[in-house]
Amino acid sequence: MQVYFDNAATTPMRPEVITAMHQSMQTCFGNPSSTHSYGRHAKSLIEAARKKIAAIIGAEAGEIIFTSGGTESDNMILRAAVKDLGIQTIISSPLEHHAVLHTLERLKATGTHIKYVDVLPNSHIDFRHLEELLESASGPILVSLMHVNNEIGTILDLERVTALCQKHQALFHTDAVQGVGHFEIDLSTLPVDFLSAAAHKFHGPKGVGFSFIRKGSQMLPFIEGGAQERGLRAGTEAVHSIVGMQKAIEIAYENLSKERQYVLGLKKHFIQGLQNLFPSVHLNGLSSDWEQSTYTLVNVALPISSEQSQLLDFQLDLKGIACSKGSACQSGSNSRSHVLNALPPTKEITTSLRFSFSSFNTTKEVDYVLDVLKEFA
Amino acid sequence: MQVYFDNAATTPMRPEVITAMHQSMQTCFGNPSSTHSYGRHAKSLIEAARKKIAAIIGAEAGEIIFTSGGTESDNMILRAAVKDLGIQTIISSPLEHHAVLHTLERLKATGTHIKYVDVLPNSHIDFRHLEELLESASGPILVSLMHVNNEIGTILDLERVTALCQKHQALFHTDAVQGVGHFEIDLSTLPVDFLSAAAHKFHGPKGVGFSFIRKGSQMLPFIEGGAQERGLRAGTEAVHSIVGMQKAIEIAYENLSKERQYVLGLKKHFIQGLQNLFPSVHLNGLSSDWEQSTYTLVNVALPISSEQSQLLDFQLDLKGIACSKGSACQSGSNSRSHVLNALPPTKEITTSLRFSFSSFNTTKEVDYVLDVLKEFA
Repeated sequence: MQVYFDNAATTPMRPEVITAMHQSMQTCFGNPSSTHSYGRHAKSLIEAARKKIAAIIGAEAGEIIFTSGGTESDNMILRAAVKDLGIQTIISSPLEHHAVLHTLERLKATGTHIKYVDVLPNSHIDFRHLEELLESASGPILVSLMHVNNEIGTILDLERVTALCQKHQALFHTDAVQGVGHFEIDLSTLPVDFLSAAAHKFHGPKGVGFSFIRKGSQMLPFIEGGAQERGLRAGTEAVHSIVGMQKAIEIAYENLSKERQYVLGLKKHFIQGLQNLFPSVHLNGLSSDWEQSTYTLVNVALPISSEQSQLLDFQLDLKGIACSKGSACQSGSNSRSHVLNALPPTKEITTSLRFSFSSFNTTKEVDYVLDVLKEFA
Repeated sequence: MQVYFDNAATTPMRPEVITAMHQSMQTCFGNPSSTHSYGRHAKSLIEAARKKIAAIIGAEAGEIIFTSGGTESDNMILRAAVKDLGIQTIISSPLEHHAVLHTLERLKATGTHIKYVDVLPNSHIDFRHLEELLESASGPILVSLMHVNNEIGTILDLERVTALCQKHQALFHTDAVQGVGHFEIDLSTLPVDFLSAAAHKFHGPKGVGFSFIRKGSQMLPFIEGGAQERGLRAGTEAVHSIVGMQKAIEIAYENLSKERQYVLGLKKHFIQGLQNLFPSVHLNGLSSDWEQSTYTLVNVALPISSEQSQLLDFQLDLKGIACSKGSACQSGSNSRSHVLNALPPTKEITTSLRFSFSSFNTTKEVDYVLDVLKEFA
């Protein structure tokens, strides 16, 4: 049996997405920047995608800039905020993805003030500290906080953050790579300034994503060249992948509540099984809170030593089970992830694993994984 | 009849490329950074592509960095050269693509010395002037010159440039977006330091390309985040598109001499037909020199007024013929392209058009286009 429980790293593409991409590759090869009929056809496909994606998240079409993925989107927004918008202080958290953290390190080296908000033991950011940072920060401020944490699943209260940012005239960027496609986001009412998303996290293709850039921003391109994407992102657009992203986001939102219930059911079943097997199991973050943590993943600290842990890795692989120790981007590294390090240490010796689900998974698969874990109980 | 003579803007994907991509999307969805079997499978596909592409251009696998295309590759190399390698002067030409020119403008604004080599009336760069610039430049130097011009097709003598660069200890980058897939390039003997390529120019997918970065370079990532691409380019790789790029480059080089002869035949037939129709036709650049200009395109200055030119645009579109006035990235602009402006003006009133061919085109198509142009003779 092959079980894929690593949907936070990437998701299998929906068959409908593959079909749409296959069809677009067969029928439309023009360069969207060309003015002849081949170009206009390609242009019409990407503009339809832009319009559709914008409508789904409550944005205007002109606020959606296609990129090569979430990482590029994060880089683009953070760097342009400093370079073009005069941002002098960025407030972020130690729980962010490396696409944000490493970019902030680079910006710090060139003089931007970078402040990290404290993290509470429950894995939420400390809003009181965020307010203190906003009050004491110098110059124009950008706050960059992720919507749904990719390792532990904690959901940020976007309304509360945006209210604070508005109060202090700070701009707000959210890395919503784990949020878009999984949660309703309405940017027509939520005053987020910038948002990053990646198609492969919601059953779309890899290598494509988008930046939401609120109308009126004076950003300049991160990648320079042709005048694609309203002059904000040069380079011939990946038409086939943009078509796939559109199909993926459409299906995601058409089925959101149904699939959410289904996937949450898998997660609950898995947690219950784990608690039966390991009475002392610890859930990192807020995984057992169905509201404050995403339904798509659970990060568990199993009462297992590091020697047993190696055996477990081996067994999981042997039994065809895919899960992860942190984000895929850090795979292979043996050190504890930066996200778990921002949380209080567990008292016992434990091994943390992230299991992440999608609507492609089944209860049978959950039971199979529990059965393999039983040997280590 | 539909005739696509704009292959310098983008090319139709080969059916084999579409099939390979379709198959990879159906059978491999893992994140190449994941260490489990799904991830290893995806990793094996992109590493096989890297190895294959490297072998074809005489590079080592570790010297190929996958990007979102030629524009990103150009941006990445030029900026990293200044930021990480201490380059103080960049010598380039007014004939470059906007991906280079606009990036240079930005670098100039932050203090890098940018020098442009003179262009001879025949569209070649002035090597004597290049040597003067190399002699007089201050600090470490990067030369950035495109291999095959995208608008007029003039081919740069790479050996001559690299010899000059070596003599003056300058690094050399070539935007080979119109060269890779069309000409043999052997980087094991040619001392090019950096090269940019894009798959969609050789019948591969859009939104994917690569940078060749010679071993030993101390570049840092342009896009920050995870440790993908040996730490040089963060972001989950577009596995399906990389698979497509590999297939496209393989087929391109397997059939290179055969297709080159065939496409050159189309070009010769077209030029002959044009010269019969318009005895005063002028070929911009060196289009009628079969060695010094690419076999894939011809840029012609037809003896047509700007009013007639609008009618011609209309007729071409009506008759299903796609060609262009410059690069696709500038389409829609009515002003004469920056490349043609770098050449001596024609004496008569003319309208310049670029017709670019691929092995997918036929003699019948050439005759059809000539027939439409006949009305304007």
